Amino acid sequence: MKPKIDYTLYLVTDRKLMSSPTIEESVEQAVRGGCTLVQLREKESSSRDFYKTAMKLRELTTRLDVPLIVNDRVDIALAVGADGVHVGQDDLPVEVARQIIGPDKIIGVSASSLSEALKATEDGADYLGIGAMFTTDTKADAHLTAIEELQRIQEAVSLPIVVIGGISKETVSFFRDSGIEGLAVVSAIVAQKDIAGATQELKKLFLEGRTNV
Amino acid sequence: MKPKIDYTLYLVTDRKLMSSPTIEESVEQAVRGGCTLVQLREKESSSRDFYKTAMKLRELTTRLDVPLIVNDRVDIALAVGADGVHVGQDDLPVEVARQIIGPDKIIGVSASSLSEALKATEDGADYLGIGAMFTTDTKADAHLTAIEELQRIQEAVSLPIVVIGGISKETVSFFRDSGIEGLAVVSAIVAQKDIAGATQELKKLFLEGRTNV
Repeated sequence: MKPKIDYTLYLVTDRKLMSSPTIEESVEQAVRGGCTLVQLREKESSSRDFYKTAMKLRELTTRLDVPLIVNDRVDIALAVGADGVHVGQDDLPVEVARQIIGPDKIIGVSASSLSEALKATEDGADYLGIGAMFTTDTKADAHLTAIEELQRIQEAVSLPIVVIGGISKETVSFFRDSGIEGLAVVSAIVAQKDIAGATQELKKLFLEGRTNV
Repeated sequence: MKPKIDYTLYLVTDRKLMSSPTIEESVEQAVRGGCTLVQLREKESSSRDFYKTAMKLRELTTRLDVPLIVNDRVDIALAVGADGVHVGQDDLPVEVARQIIGPDKIIGVSASSLSEALKATEDGADYLGIGAMFTTDTKADAHLTAIEELQRIQEAVSLPIVVIGGISKETVSFFRDSGIEGLAVVSAIVAQKDIAGATQELKKLFLEGRTNV
């Protein structure tokens, strides 16, 4: 059976941006600050290093009782017993990832448009990462998603939606009453000096004064 | 059950070095010239492109009746129903790859030393790719394996052995009577104008006049 996921504050790792010496430290701080879900994203590591880091995060997230999602690599998700995999439009197709990873794991899909969101839903995604909502240094080449497109996706699709791309304390207010499930955050957490504090603040800004909680 | 593999002439693809416009064309020519086994190696493709190419090669190699091995990516090997996976020292550990890919697939392992070869054997490899035997432009940072080390590996290990790294018509004579199972070749095949012809010539040079055939 698929695990029940709390998408409220979804940490996506980035080795280049992080302020702490190891990914494990960043993740531990972020979870202590309130992150509810962790995605290990490694774009330049060898498979061996990716696997080793995933093993460490599997132990850590189990201990901290938050789910772990692996970006792109279904084999590494399987190897470490992650809770799921997140695939972008350049990664394995959702239905192929599903065949390999099986019915009991979470598959998240990045989508920047309504058509991508509909296709991912049809192909068996469990949640959608919509964006990039704003321009960001993390992914300079990302397609931007207009707020209106996000709304069209929300109307058309019943899957949990997280927004990604430029989510920070400056932009979080856009989404407070939007009905989305959560925020996916990279640099506004891992690049901060006080990771736990930044996480707490983001979460508070997202949740407080919400009219639909 | 694992497929029976003929390791005599093992083609390893390289998108950057190939003379023909598509990997499929290179592979088709090489197999027509006498390659007995094909490894798809993609070091810079996105997962999606890697998967698409692997799908095309799966169809092609099935039609040409040669086995297909996927480099590094166990998930892509599974996704396309490849005959196996080849892992290097920076890829997933052999025993982890075996857990994911199952008992009926071939796992090949790159080893440059006796200790790596013994470990791979112990961990469940089906064949070893030993090298680099000579310096090569394909992998400038590869560890070199002395001919004496190859001989020590052959004495210590009963798995099929292919040599890789700088194997060409100039160097093939070193291995003719060495007792190794086959040659793994990149640029001496895919970078040639006449791929089928170059393949035929290499195979002939390797097999002809062998005293132990």
